[in-house]
Amino acid sequence: MPAPTTPPPQTGSRPGGRSARVRAAVHRAVRELVADEAGEPMTIPAVAARAGVHATTVYRRWGSVGELLADVTTSRFTGEIVVPDTGSVRGDLERYASDLAKDLGDPDTLALVRATIGTGGEQGAAACRGERRRQLEAILERARARGEQAPSLEHTTDAVLAPLYYRAVFTDFPLTPEWTGSLVSRLLPD
Amino acid sequence: MPAPTTPPPQTGSRPGGRSARVRAAVHRAVRELVADEAGEPMTIPAVAARAGVHATTVYRRWGSVGELLADVTTSRFTGEIVVPDTGSVRGDLERYASDLAKDLGDPDTLALVRATIGTGGEQGAAACRGERRRQLEAILERARARGEQAPSLEHTTDAVLAPLYYRAVFTDFPLTPEWTGSLVSRLLPD
Repeated sequence: MPAPTTPPPQTGSRPGGRSARVRAAVHRAVRELVADEAGEPMTIPAVAARAGVHATTVYRRWGSVGELLADVTTSRFTGEIVVPDTGSVRGDLERYASDLAKDLGDPDTLALVRATIGTGGEQGAAACRGERRRQLEAILERARARGEQAPSLEHTTDAVLAPLYYRAVFTDFPLTPEWTGSLVSRLLPD
Repeated sequence: MPAPTTPPPQTGSRPGGRSARVRAAVHRAVRELVADEAGEPMTIPAVAARAGVHATTVYRRWGSVGELLADVTTSRFTGEIVVPDTGSVRGDLERYASDLAKDLGDPDTLALVRATIGTGGEQGAAACRGERRRQLEAILERARARGEQAPSLEHTTDAVLAPLYYRAVFTDFPLTPEWTGSLVSRLLPD
């Protein structure tokens, strides 16, 4: 890796620059550590060693393990799920619930969500929610624009989003397609 | 604190013995550290220092931070909520949801649940669920024994338990009595 002769700018966003490479290496190290060592708290020195950077670099840029995990989870969840557009609110919610179940059912994603909740406080919680609220709102607003009856965002969150997160994070029950379908059926009875 | 002249038995359960005192001191240290230092991963040396015991004692007895947190959370949730018996499934579930909302809405409990999910893996998840499943099953079976219509345990979990955990752990929305009441109303329409 060629070292730049001058320090990188402090923006942290120059594509392909040293800053971006450090960020990618640290993110990768966090994802690997979380996947490998679930059950033990992560430390910044361990992340830095695996990423091949100085611990002070990680401390300076992310401040704490909680902030670092929240950043990795935010990246992981951004753009991961595309809001479906099937033509009906039922179809959209069924597809959305099924996609989210696949995502949360992935062991590495689940380990990352759990670790982020564990140390990230409110910031970690926000990272784990990701764009879910905005995505559900988009589905419901499009339904209303088509003239469909649509439940409230709060009801949809309680009936579809909450069971998906609860079952994935707090239980060892599988997130089957039959079950995610039943969540939408109960929300939208015929 | 008088030191016993012989090592304590290995049962770990002699009431009032050294083993029980160590357990109480370590549990208290964990609860205090979780409340004070949310955002930083807990370490066994830090717990041991605060509890005034050797770190080796903690490692020998609990093995890892994840197991220690799961043990503290299990203790915290055991017997905390009494299964209500109001004479109707609606009354029982309303009371139960309200009690659970108060419990999960407590900042120290929430910090403990988040920390336990963060490092405890499946064991931590089980500790956070506590006896919820058995308690809900008791409410539903009593309703059926009275001849009331009662929803399935799965539906009740998805409709009442999951939103309570999701809202407490993953959002900063308040767990208001109006909201917990609405969860039960949607599960049991008139």
